[in-house]
Amino acid sequence: MKRELEHLANFLQAAVNHKKKIGFNGTLLIEPKPQEPTKHQYDWDVATTFSFLQKFGLTGEFKINVECNHATLSGHSCHHELETARINDILGNIDANTGDPQVGWDTDEFLTDISEATLIMSSVVKNVDGLAPGGFNFDAKLRRESTDVEDLFIAHISGMDTMARGLRNVAKLIEDGSLDELVRKRYQSFDTEIGAMIEAGKGDFETLEKKVLEWGEPTVPSGKQELAEMLFQSAL
Amino acid sequence: MKRELEHLANFLQAAVNHKKKIGFNGTLLIEPKPQEPTKHQYDWDVATTFSFLQKFGLTGEFKINVECNHATLSGHSCHHELETARINDILGNIDANTGDPQVGWDTDEFLTDISEATLIMSSVVKNVDGLAPGGFNFDAKLRRESTDVEDLFIAHISGMDTMARGLRNVAKLIEDGSLDELVRKRYQSFDTEIGAMIEAGKGDFETLEKKVLEWGEPTVPSGKQELAEMLFQSAL
Amino acid sequence: MKRELEHLANFLQAAVNHKKKIGFNGTLLIEPKPQEPTKHQYDWDVATTFSFLQKFGLTGEFKINVECNHATLSGHSCHHELETARINDILGNIDANTGDPQVGWDTDEFLTDISEATLIMSSVVKNVDGLAPGGFNFDAKLRRESTDVEDLFIAHISGMDTMARGLRNVAKLIEDGSLDELVRKRYQSFDTEIGAMIEAGKGDFETLEKKVLEWGEPTVPSGKQELAEMLFQSAL
Amino acid sequence: MKRELEHLANFLQAAVNHKKKIGFNGTLLIEPKPQEPTKHQYDWDVATTFSFLQKFGLTGEFKINVECNHATLSGHSCHHELETARINDILGNIDANTGDPQVGWDTDEFLTDISEATLIMSSVVKNVDGLAPGGFNFDAKLRRESTDVEDLFIAHISGMDTMARGLRNVAKLIEDGSLDELVRKRYQSFDTEIGAMIEAGKGDFETLEKKVLEWGEPTVPSGKQELAEMLFQSAL
Repeated sequence: MKRELEHLANFLQAAVNHKKKIGFNGTLLIEPKPQEPTKHQYDWDVATTFSFLQKFGLTGEFKINVECNHATLSGHSCHHELETARINDILGNIDANTGDPQVGWDTDEFLTDISEATLIMSSVVKNVDGLAPGGFNFDAKLRRESTDVEDLFIAHISGMDTMARGLRNVAKLIEDGSLDELVRKRYQSFDTEIGAMIEAGKGDFETLEKKVLEWGEPTVPSGKQELAEMLFQSAL
Repeated sequence: MKRELEHLANFLQAAVNHKKKIGFNGTLLIEPKPQEPTKHQYDWDVATTFSFLQKFGLTGEFKINVECNHATLSGHSCHHELETARINDILGNIDANTGDPQVGWDTDEFLTDISEATLIMSSVVKNVDGLAPGGFNFDAKLRRESTDVEDLFIAHISGMDTMARGLRNVAKLIEDGSLDELVRKRYQSFDTEIGAMIEAGKGDFETLEKKVLEWGEPTVPSGKQELAEMLFQSAL
Repeated sequence: MKRELEHLANFLQAAVNHKKKIGFNGTLLIEPKPQEPTKHQYDWDVATTFSFLQKFGLTGEFKINVECNHATLSGHSCHHELETARINDILGNIDANTGDPQVGWDTDEFLTDISEATLIMSSVVKNVDGLAPGGFNFDAKLRRESTDVEDLFIAHISGMDTMARGLRNVAKLIEDGSLDELVRKRYQSFDTEIGAMIEAGKGDFETLEKKVLEWGEPTVPSGKQELAEMLFQSAL
Repeated sequence: MKRELEHLANFLQAAVNHKKKIGFNGTLLIEPKPQEPTKHQYDWDVATTFSFLQKFGLTGEFKINVECNHATLSGHSCHHELETARINDILGNIDANTGDPQVGWDTDEFLTDISEATLIMSSVVKNVDGLAPGGFNFDAKLRRESTDVEDLFIAHISGMDTMARGLRNVAKLIEDGSLDELVRKRYQSFDTEIGAMIEAGKGDFETLEKKVLEWGEPTVPSGKQELAEMLFQSAL
């Protein structure tokens, strides 16, 4: 496994070198997939792929193409994978398909779930400079019993409309502001005395211990998960 | 396992006898749960429980309480479990909670997914005579980090609103009629010559073979899965 | 779903009628499979299939072909499926392949796990009159990277040897007797006063209540799960 | 999520600083766990944790405690997690418990599976300098129905014996050498002309293209998966 990964890294480095040599300006993308056809594939999920890129000095040369159905197969939600890519500055493109939570293989269905589409779009909107030059692929296929020509049109229209509804929902959520405000409040202690000290990398254990003894048992504010879910669903 | 099941059946029969003796008119309910705390529990899902009831002559004495989160744990959707109970005339009550498709234990969350709520309500509306004397329990608890008193209100309001939106969506779908019409068309061959013969239990292999040879390769109409999903999502 | 199941039952009844008409003496088998290619297939697992057979009066006409890999996909172990079939007198044949517990589709691998093979063989040995006229299929295929002709021989030899080791382990377990004795002790209360009364279907709630009040809190004997596992593994 | 991870990294850095300040020589360990009690925990698996350590410059300061049951919950096998830690020089300790492949929560059972124990021991034996100063914890508890005092002894003896059998099996596999030879042969092309060039990071696309055109379609040697499984199982 060690040798295979080193081999793969050298091969990808050769691809980077070749890209530079021929003056190609496109983005190189890796698409994580946990398994199928083999088991324990090396690019299991975004975090595993980012770990690989860091180890072999390839960060900066590759971005990630997140496929939503692959997220399901790796035990994550698509939103989790998108956020993992986004906060590490490696979100490059999205295959906006969907699978089935009770099915363990890649079904590549057209996305029609508005809740999922809203979460996907919220990652895109938050991504610095959006997705360009990347974008969305459907990477979806008709169910095998859908045999009419018009089914192809229906599926694509339905998929596009779902993404559009997702984008409009995100706009609504941003304009309303309640959900962002909830998150801001949840993390406001990060901006106070001790929080800010830790943020700045200056929180040593002696100081933390002194403060903890001085302040006693903290009041734990509510996480307000149900309120967050209600605010989110109300926008759909 | 055989002996334990027989023992259990005898115990449940004693419960039925006792109910009759004391003149209790309530419905006896069994709530399927695949596992937790043990593995391979005997009431894995609705079909398994119905199999048990049939084997021991208890059909008619027990109805099912479907818990949506247990459906997830047994590898089914809640809608699948509700429909399995409904078509076998044993749907008695619903625990309208929800779990997480990526989590393998019972989280008993409040339901906020409108799509799920719409599917649940469609089973209730189709159930002969509705659910009475049964109904809905939330059977949900706050996330452990939700520590404010108001969180209890928020969660219940959010859960009720979700069910209400589900019911309104079902009404919209019924009034519109397109989805029902799609299903009707999909099964219309069941009403024609051969279909009707099979429906009536009169389709023998000789006749079927003769017809197949006479008619040649059939034209397979499209299943129109994507159209069905689009019609469903458009109502949400 | 109701109509499709009725249709299917009528079709299977026609198969039974045809079998009798032409004087065919073989066993008709149904092989449960939870999903793939579709989702929520009607013969999800043994219990679901037995439920279907009972509802439509087909018990006695069909036996089950348990495929081990399908057991995994339905969230069960192969042993659980075999036992469910055995105690309902419908175990007819076994596809002794295996899948991967971390993989969600049918991989149809050759069985090489001795522990699994021992459990499978213990169900066969306990089955009244064994499996005849049924038996074992491998229903397994080589991994796609196994391209030598000799791989076919290796896989089949390995599969057969594994089943043989399983059978020898079961013989060892039976001769030793410790595991059977553990199970006997675990259920010996079923043979005593109250246990026997429930076994005979004569345990009414008044008597049970009286006895419970009379006897007080029972001493719960240990389930001895770890001892059972140690005895089992020691035989391998 | 970004801010929380940065916060966590700063906190762990403070722990490292404190360790150095007080002259503590022990190894700092992180134990990956995918979920439970929350979802999407930040230390999902070994690869995710290694990605985090690399990003925040903490590699070298932390090693990993791999818990086998957590491996199952993250969709991996324990062996995969151990190997991922080993090849990245971060394997520090092992919680040698086990879970159930069909159960989605942490059951912390004593390990009795010899095949699993053999795979675990093979990672330990291959780990440079073994595991010291780390080692094995059972991190297992009795099933809740195991209520005898002797059950505690039985479980620990059974767990230790299983690990010992695993170690003896690994010794047998190494002495026999067939499995290692199979792996060596599988990768021997990595030592030849082109393979060695890629290994050395000197394989550029022009050279690779030239060689591919010169040599034509390669003969693909068999992966011999079934032979590998047979050799492995024969040692148990």
